[in-house]
Amino acid sequence: MDEYPLADRGACSVARTLAVLGDAWSLLVVREMFLGAHRFDQLHAHLGIARNVLAARLRRLIEHGILTKRRYAEHPERFEYHLTGKGVDLYPALVALMQWGDHYLADPHGGPIVLEHKTCGHATTLVPSCTACGAPVSAREMRVRARHAVG
Amino acid sequence: MDEYPLADRGACSVARTLAVLGDAWSLLVVREMFLGAHRFDQLHAHLGIARNVLAARLRRLIEHGILTKRRYAEHPERFEYHLTGKGVDLYPALVALMQWGDHYLADPHGGPIVLEHKTCGHATTLVPSCTACGAPVSAREMRVRARHAVG
Repeated sequence: MDEYPLADRGACSVARTLAVLGDAWSLLVVREMFLGAHRFDQLHAHLGIARNVLAARLRRLIEHGILTKRRYAEHPERFEYHLTGKGVDLYPALVALMQWGDHYLADPHGGPIVLEHKTCGHATTLVPSCTACGAPVSAREMRVRARHAVG
Repeated sequence: MDEYPLADRGACSVARTLAVLGDAWSLLVVREMFLGAHRFDQLHAHLGIARNVLAARLRRLIEHGILTKRRYAEHPERFEYHLTGKGVDLYPALVALMQWGDHYLADPHGGPIVLEHKTCGHATTLVPSCTACGAPVSAREMRVRARHAVG
């Protein structure tokens, strides 16, 4: 076996991220923010989720610093939810999950959303590229090593 | 509101992907494959998951064409689990989740794993880049539009 000696699986950043996100609802709430839905009633309508579950997910995302709550009306008091920088940084993960679904799970005509790169003006897909050399990479071209010696 | 009119949230490829992956265990099983763990007992030891839950997740991942089962011994009959092409294609999502965790949730010295790009030989992080123009992109530079007119 050519197995990588990750001694402490609990320190794995994938595991920690998934523990924070909790379940699919959290990422779907984050998706809604990227699609421009920021109000409780919109989220409730779009997600088809029970109000108490939605409220719990929003609280959790705020506790983890992924969302922030902004008052947009005073009488009565009303709030919107917005992504923090930490929340916006979930974009690469969200897009990667979306693109996998577009490729393998979408209806024959493709997924419902097209991404456009404002800077170049084209409809596009995103591919991971190496920050060291700039080239797009595939899983096969990557390997892992331990950051620290493991006991 | 500048809200994107995604009429049918159920067709969303993020939602479909998360529905297939089910819960965190599925992505952690996929992680183990990338780390070189392919046998039931390894997965059981690494994930700290009940045997029946692990068996159910493996069955589900096979049903969805993400894993395949290969016999590696005949007496007694033993199997290994390997990623299919569809499974390998989860790499960008897995790395994006890992890197978010490395940035926001890791211990002060960083996450336990370093990625190396074999082609250029450097330790690296991966960043989404535009397949149309090749430039690395951030969430802010992207917009969405509907693939089809929505009613």
